[in-house]
Amino acid sequence: MGKSIDRLGEFGLIDSIRKYQYPSSRVVEGIGDDAAVLKLDARRYQLLTTDMLVEGVHFLRDASARQVGHKALACNISDIAAMGGLPTHAVISLGLPSGLPARYVSQLYEGMSALARKFDVSIVGGDTVRADTLVINIALLGEVEKKHLVLRRGACPGDVIFVTGPLGNTLHSGRHLTFLPRVKEARFLVENYKPSAMMDISDGLAGDLGHLLKASRVGAVIDEIRIPLNPGAGLNSALSGGEDFELLFTLPAARAHSLACSAAGKKGFSFIQVGVIIKGPARISLRDRQGVLKTISASGYKHF
Amino acid sequence: MGKSIDRLGEFGLIDSIRKYQYPSSRVVEGIGDDAAVLKLDARRYQLLTTDMLVEGVHFLRDASARQVGHKALACNISDIAAMGGLPTHAVISLGLPSGLPARYVSQLYEGMSALARKFDVSIVGGDTVRADTLVINIALLGEVEKKHLVLRRGACPGDVIFVTGPLGNTLHSGRHLTFLPRVKEARFLVENYKPSAMMDISDGLAGDLGHLLKASRVGAVIDEIRIPLNPGAGLNSALSGGEDFELLFTLPAARAHSLACSAAGKKGFSFIQVGVIIKGPARISLRDRQGVLKTISASGYKHF
Repeated sequence: MGKSIDRLGEFGLIDSIRKYQYPSSRVVEGIGDDAAVLKLDARRYQLLTTDMLVEGVHFLRDASARQVGHKALACNISDIAAMGGLPTHAVISLGLPSGLPARYVSQLYEGMSALARKFDVSIVGGDTVRADTLVINIALLGEVEKKHLVLRRGACPGDVIFVTGPLGNTLHSGRHLTFLPRVKEARFLVENYKPSAMMDISDGLAGDLGHLLKASRVGAVIDEIRIPLNPGAGLNSALSGGEDFELLFTLPAARAHSLACSAAGKKGFSFIQVGVIIKGPARISLRDRQGVLKTISASGYKHF
Repeated sequence: MGKSIDRLGEFGLIDSIRKYQYPSSRVVEGIGDDAAVLKLDARRYQLLTTDMLVEGVHFLRDASARQVGHKALACNISDIAAMGGLPTHAVISLGLPSGLPARYVSQLYEGMSALARKFDVSIVGGDTVRADTLVINIALLGEVEKKHLVLRRGACPGDVIFVTGPLGNTLHSGRHLTFLPRVKEARFLVENYKPSAMMDISDGLAGDLGHLLKASRVGAVIDEIRIPLNPGAGLNSALSGGEDFELLFTLPAARAHSLACSAAGKKGFSFIQVGVIIKGPARISLRDRQGVLKTISASGYKHF
């Protein structure tokens, strides 16, 4: 009988599937970052990511079809942004329940294609099948200049930890259906500040910072008072609510200072320092409002 | 309320989504062939395809997890073969019901990775989410030399129509869970015989020949007596049973003659002539065992 997937969890699953990865000379980074990185040409890497959205888990039927389509593509674009890249081509699979109005499907596509146009993504194919509940899977290609690629595993002790916007209360407020992936922010950063590590926040700040620390083999101290919160969000929601889709990144101290003094705000960007990377095991210490340090769980939002 | 997707059907849906395709200078072929074709370098195109499999629709829980994993990747590899190409990199999304044994998931991956190794496919990432029923989506990249690319739309009057093996009774016999995608056959053909059109047979011979005729703007006459049948298969099952995953291709008469006289059989390949392409509307005429011609429906297997 063994373990059920509920006990193993998503990251247990990801660890257990790494062994099935088949080596290939074109693979620069495989399973475990926001997107796979493949060799493309002398100057660029190709990026490939995929995300599955299931009705009742990632959205409810009362969300508008346009929003659901928007979210399905936006999650994928966010993964490409997290590598420092630009999205290029998408294929879309739909599992559609019998009796679903054709109008609902058109509006799904309208939501996807409006966002695709905004980010120059070409929808080049897909698959449509019957399913009991609505399922949307998108696979998205992207590109990044070799010099601009950012992984999760480059954070070093002394680096400053940033996020690109307020966190928490994203599911309740509906923001998870309408967010714009942080492509412009990511490109501004890779072109001007070369982050040492970057990823998007889909599992809460604690969960995803935990992944970044594990990949980089470092620890972190974050300040409760610095964590930016969405209206209605509490600390727990920011740490482990999930689906914020802001970027989490680290910069060496000198470049962090330079970013803080830059005109990023004039471009409408917001880069908020929330803590620092330290030597040691991949643990997060939270400095509370009284200045007391406590280790927090990096488990983040649980998919199972 | 408008049409439901049941009335529109899969190909109605595909037609209706073409308008959402965003133009891009890298896209050679978008929605509507077995895989999308993108520019890669001076010599090669990149191919991208995706397929979604849903429990209860494409497989039942009593199929072994290894077989289900095998099938999920095999369908995608078949799409790449149908363009004349070789598969390279895959990303795998799993929607997993709560309580599914972790062992089932390992065996799914084992089925996929055994096939991946056989065809030099590298599994480079994916997504795992919770779902009420088991859903597997794979997106697969491939490559093809520009000179070897074959589309659905190149068939000309006078071309001979071939299939690569027996058809029908695939679901009942379980063959849809164990088939090997026809990559070797496709490569042999593109390297030696340059098919004028090619695709894989997933919706029955009538259904998929119908798509090929529509794309090529030609008609066809097929001979009942020539259609190769699997054990237990009747004509209807071959014409519209679905999930055979043999290749359907066309060759100009001279090259067809040359293929018939070749040593293909010694390589274990079987290329069976089933009819000819004719001028006229995209209709299939079936010559029955009495030599009587009748027009048959090209609707094939219905997904909705």
